[in-house]
Amino acid sequence: MNVSKMDPGKPVAVVGAGLVGAGWAIAFARAGLRVRLYDANPRTAEQALPWAANQLAALHDHGLIDEAPATIAARLTLADSLAQAIDGAAYVQESVLERVDVKRQLMVDLEEVADRSVIIGSSSSGIKASDFANDLAISPRVLIAHPVNPPYLVPVVELVPSTQTSQETIAFTDALMRGIGQSVVHVRKEIEGFVLNRLQAALLREAWALQRDGIASCEDIDKTVRDGLGWRWSFMGPFETIDLNAPGGVADYANRLGPLYYSIARSRTEDGPWDDALIARVEEDRRRHLRADELAARRDWRDEQLMLFAASRTKSGAR
Amino acid sequence: MNVSKMDPGKPVAVVGAGLVGAGWAIAFARAGLRVRLYDANPRTAEQALPWAANQLAALHDHGLIDEAPATIAARLTLADSLAQAIDGAAYVQESVLERVDVKRQLMVDLEEVADRSVIIGSSSSGIKASDFANDLAISPRVLIAHPVNPPYLVPVVELVPSTQTSQETIAFTDALMRGIGQSVVHVRKEIEGFVLNRLQAALLREAWALQRDGIASCEDIDKTVRDGLGWRWSFMGPFETIDLNAPGGVADYANRLGPLYYSIARSRTEDGPWDDALIARVEEDRRRHLRADELAARRDWRDEQLMLFAASRTKSGAR
Repeated sequence: MNVSKMDPGKPVAVVGAGLVGAGWAIAFARAGLRVRLYDANPRTAEQALPWAANQLAALHDHGLIDEAPATIAARLTLADSLAQAIDGAAYVQESVLERVDVKRQLMVDLEEVADRSVIIGSSSSGIKASDFANDLAISPRVLIAHPVNPPYLVPVVELVPSTQTSQETIAFTDALMRGIGQSVVHVRKEIEGFVLNRLQAALLREAWALQRDGIASCEDIDKTVRDGLGWRWSFMGPFETIDLNAPGGVADYANRLGPLYYSIARSRTEDGPWDDALIARVEEDRRRHLRADELAARRDWRDEQLMLFAASRTKSGAR
Repeated sequence: MNVSKMDPGKPVAVVGAGLVGAGWAIAFARAGLRVRLYDANPRTAEQALPWAANQLAALHDHGLIDEAPATIAARLTLADSLAQAIDGAAYVQESVLERVDVKRQLMVDLEEVADRSVIIGSSSSGIKASDFANDLAISPRVLIAHPVNPPYLVPVVELVPSTQTSQETIAFTDALMRGIGQSVVHVRKEIEGFVLNRLQAALLREAWALQRDGIASCEDIDKTVRDGLGWRWSFMGPFETIDLNAPGGVADYANRLGPLYYSIARSRTEDGPWDDALIARVEEDRRRHLRADELAARRDWRDEQLMLFAASRTKSGAR
């Protein structure tokens, strides 16, 4: 742990103890930080602790933590109030409901109880910080810190400032996130969906259109990614992939294949939304492949695969 | 090896012995098939054999083949002519230059020498079979079998019929490809870029636009994929990812997030081509991250990472 800008004696507060908040709590505690968990619903906060203990045991089984699970779990405590959670905290990870009114209310509440130095990162996956965090005394100290679930396995975090976020807030959060082992992406301007969900949206747009037009089934489109494109994307991004895929690098590649890609792009300018008939058709296609009563077991399989992937990534040293 | 529709005593011919053809030769030979390699340029064919021996040694080092590399290499032979290569062959994998006139000429040549049963798969990554293989006696027996490089590591293969391909040809090639361990994707209608390159094009279109608009650097966009989206996509496709990401499955997900994705799609309807200024800017961004004289070493790193990924995939059993 190397959190250069943060006093490691100070705790982190996680506000909102659902799946995202509890996941963040593990990521912070694993790095040696004390974590105070708060949720407006006390039952949600209480359930977070046994859930975290289970996850820590699984991480240990996969060789993904060195300390004993109980040692890490002991760094997690529940707070009875928002004020208690953030008292003396250096950083707050906001993980409440993805709704602009709920996030705004929390900012107003934090304005009341936050001291003048605490930094506040929001787990918002799509709502811009400027939509809920501006025009308060705390505004310069708020930014988006959007994780992928679960953040203790998938390292990426998108930092997105609002129009009022200070440079110091970005620098602090960058150092904190690197310190706990996350992979920091700087989104320099607020944009709907940030970077991660925009890239996912682009792939899904094409995938849905291919299914709609009868070009390929959901399962065959999925195979194209998991048995093809996804192999390189698991250790290289799209730019590095094409940079290495032409003798002269990315410009060489763009000059060779740019016209093909432009032609493909032009064929996707008028896509409508996913209408009810298309959604029903995709649902039917997926249910042929995986029954509704198999979804839960397949989610467990996915979580297991993510652990295995994290373990193999650690070994291969890809970064 | 279980090639139900193919006499395993019959050899496979690979026509075009560059990187793609030589890669296919390894994939066939590894599965126990005898392979005849032919290239119009004899030096290209000669160089393929030592290259294949090197790759087989690396596969063996990574535990990706059980037999001795020399045993597999012994199944590869060079042919002096097209006629000699395909004499008695059950299947021809065409891997010549990606140019419609070159591929058409090969089809005309094959028309002369092919017997009445041989099936011909083309490695074309974008040119449709109807553009070069129609209106010949062999036309019903030609289809696209588009691999990812290298096919002995990355399993996906896209089968795309022309307007004249027979159902028997699709069924034969499906069985052959499954038999040698490839993951078969059926593209039901000819479309520019097939499925794989269309999905890649969609992601690249958004990635280039984000870089152009100053939202994020190439490296930060790459991180979003390799440290985020790429984790799930390495063992699940985009449909399965969202199917598991809402309590009620894919329809539930589409109803929740469809409006966001449609809004993002609407913001990308008027993208122009990658112009020279943008290409220069992306090139500069990449070269800041990886110098031109480091490209070759990084390609070796990529190939090593693919081997490590293949080895870990074998262990995790993801399919």
